[in-house]
Amino acid sequence: MALVNPHGGGNLKPLLLAGQALQDEQVRAGTLPRLKVSSREAGDIIMLGIGGFTPLNGFMTHSDWQGVCDGMKLANGLFWPIPVTLSTDDESIQAGSEVALVGPDSDDILATLMVSEKYAIDKAHECMQVYKTTDVAHPGVKMVMEQGRYNLAGPIKVLSTGTFKEEYGEQFMTPAETRALFEKKGWKRIAAFQTRNPMHRSHEYLAKIAIETMDGVLVHSLLGALKPGDIPADVRSEAIRVLVENYFAANTVVQAGYPLDMRYAGPREALLHALFRQNYGCSHLIVGRDHAGVGDYYGPFDAQKIFDDIPKGSLETVNMNIDWTFWCNKCGGMASQRTCPHSKDDRILLSGTKVRSMLSEGQPLPVEFSRPEVAAVLQKYYQGLTEEENVKVELKGHSAA
Amino acid sequence: MALVNPHGGGNLKPLLLAGQALQDEQVRAGTLPRLKVSSREAGDIIMLGIGGFTPLNGFMTHSDWQGVCDGMKLANGLFWPIPVTLSTDDESIQAGSEVALVGPDSDDILATLMVSEKYAIDKAHECMQVYKTTDVAHPGVKMVMEQGRYNLAGPIKVLSTGTFKEEYGEQFMTPAETRALFEKKGWKRIAAFQTRNPMHRSHEYLAKIAIETMDGVLVHSLLGALKPGDIPADVRSEAIRVLVENYFAANTVVQAGYPLDMRYAGPREALLHALFRQNYGCSHLIVGRDHAGVGDYYGPFDAQKIFDDIPKGSLETVNMNIDWTFWCNKCGGMASQRTCPHSKDDRILLSGTKVRSMLSEGQPLPVEFSRPEVAAVLQKYYQGLTEEENVKVELKGHSAA
Repeated sequence: MALVNPHGGGNLKPLLLAGQALQDEQVRAGTLPRLKVSSREAGDIIMLGIGGFTPLNGFMTHSDWQGVCDGMKLANGLFWPIPVTLSTDDESIQAGSEVALVGPDSDDILATLMVSEKYAIDKAHECMQVYKTTDVAHPGVKMVMEQGRYNLAGPIKVLSTGTFKEEYGEQFMTPAETRALFEKKGWKRIAAFQTRNPMHRSHEYLAKIAIETMDGVLVHSLLGALKPGDIPADVRSEAIRVLVENYFAANTVVQAGYPLDMRYAGPREALLHALFRQNYGCSHLIVGRDHAGVGDYYGPFDAQKIFDDIPKGSLETVNMNIDWTFWCNKCGGMASQRTCPHSKDDRILLSGTKVRSMLSEGQPLPVEFSRPEVAAVLQKYYQGLTEEENVKVELKGHSAA
Repeated sequence: MALVNPHGGGNLKPLLLAGQALQDEQVRAGTLPRLKVSSREAGDIIMLGIGGFTPLNGFMTHSDWQGVCDGMKLANGLFWPIPVTLSTDDESIQAGSEVALVGPDSDDILATLMVSEKYAIDKAHECMQVYKTTDVAHPGVKMVMEQGRYNLAGPIKVLSTGTFKEEYGEQFMTPAETRALFEKKGWKRIAAFQTRNPMHRSHEYLAKIAIETMDGVLVHSLLGALKPGDIPADVRSEAIRVLVENYFAANTVVQAGYPLDMRYAGPREALLHALFRQNYGCSHLIVGRDHAGVGDYYGPFDAQKIFDDIPKGSLETVNMNIDWTFWCNKCGGMASQRTCPHSKDDRILLSGTKVRSMLSEGQPLPVEFSRPEVAAVLQKYYQGLTEEENVKVELKGHSAA
């Protein structure tokens, strides 16, 4: 038994150039017309660069887009749940031309694109199919609706993975790197724990359920853009690090991050999360309540159920469903709605707002809710914020992914 | 997706007769020579009767016995880990004759056997292959060594399942009954929790880990013979009943029992446990530390590892391995060696002897070790024993299976 195969069954396909090829392409890229991409598009370019979106070779064509929207498959039939597209309003770019793609926050060229096709899409159709809504209050829908008029398809050559490596060091691992690490450890059954938050005891419990029966857990933090007010990635990473150091057995957790922006597409995004975790070498994805959801757009278990609806063999990485978790006083331990027969009154439940205000005011969190070492890291962060920053921060108490 | 198939891929094959066929065979059986069987053999007959040993049609031939001992397969190639044989010293019984098989503790006829073959075996060879030892201090080896000189092979017709149904009522469920119940509940992923002891918190934790990610757990208590001094099945059942009632969510546990005697064959018996749980409709068997072991004959994880060594496809029911579990004060919860990084001093560990003496003397058990409701049931039992009985009882504190 070996690790799960990269998606599509072949080898990883990182599009990042190296060595002489990189130098040559950098020179050539300097001569091309430039196109500034959005934060979401930049995240997708970096994922393509490191092989996280194997076996895609660039941005999707119209027929790929249509197939993905309508039936979750590329034009060649391969399973894919969410469009990976690039947009522009620029009328001058035509099929057959090449462009240099520039990140949203700097003038660095991230990639070059050979435009094979330029096409308009029905944005509302994409939103209804992927997000189940066209409500622009939905942050993923908003991103699509604010896209340019045209999509540009074609293969890309990636020149840079931006500043992730500088910012996050060893935590920014590529799929090839996590696979090599898992192989070195002799791990085969690995659950990915997707998170965009610090880990409280409820999240620790989810990860430990996986560890009880598998070789290890990849705690995989989103390093891309979140909603305004979310806790910065470095603070989250530190909070997770102290948790792992103090409460997990040696050699059971790998802590890493990945560069994508959240789309908040709920069920479809859970499938994408499983797909790219397959590329990272994980056999399972932990799917909790309202995974990758936002607001009330999705039912709490929609992201679990969708795994039963996709054709068998779509993915090698499978879902590990877990219900809402908490400390229960009558159980005298961590539990979920699946394992605790007691009432809400017996459970230690704190709203995100409550947790944030307690941390900001220096009150200790209950040890049944958060490990003291984790609370200390968060407290330091909140107490360091200015009054104005503090108001903007909205701590997401429970949702893990 | 449906339940796992019965072993061999066909239908359940219960050998118990019913209706007119039963009445006719009972009359005929009364005319046959009688052979008293051992407790282990009686358990096997009842398992054959209820379909737990599907697709066997009786006791094994010499070539089945040889194949099972040497390569864990029947003469027809089907996977089978432990011989299911019947022995006698009776020189008068020959191939071609029929005998009525009588239970060890009464004159009731359990089955009729059409003797197809009479053969001698190398008992030491069976013991080395199956039990990894010929030490007669091993209770399974002792049973084999004390067998008759000859094995009798052939198909059986089962007339009775003994007194199990009277003694245990609804808990004595047949494979067809558990399958029907699972289907009614809509369960597909079901873990069998094998136990021959009451369930303390460590066992509750094992079961709950399974429930977190599956449809439910079959708490499957051995109702056959144990070692002298073990807790009687009715007391164990009541202790489990109060645990489930107070600490498990509705519709997550089925409590049932099965008629086999323990062989204490460790790894090979774990495989047999998985095989017959497949017949009961379970997709998983929880395999803890030293599963089905006794003394120091097997390494603590041998019964887990053996599942990796059998040919792929041998069984549909797979192992769910879990390490030794306990309460840890630093974790502030239940954990295992896989999830707890702390030291033994932080863990609440009580020897079986200690637990028994506390219960006998009416001292409360720590709530981190045993639920008060469970302890109350056990306390009542121990305090009801006479001094002499009490000395004989050896409470097995930790080992679940």
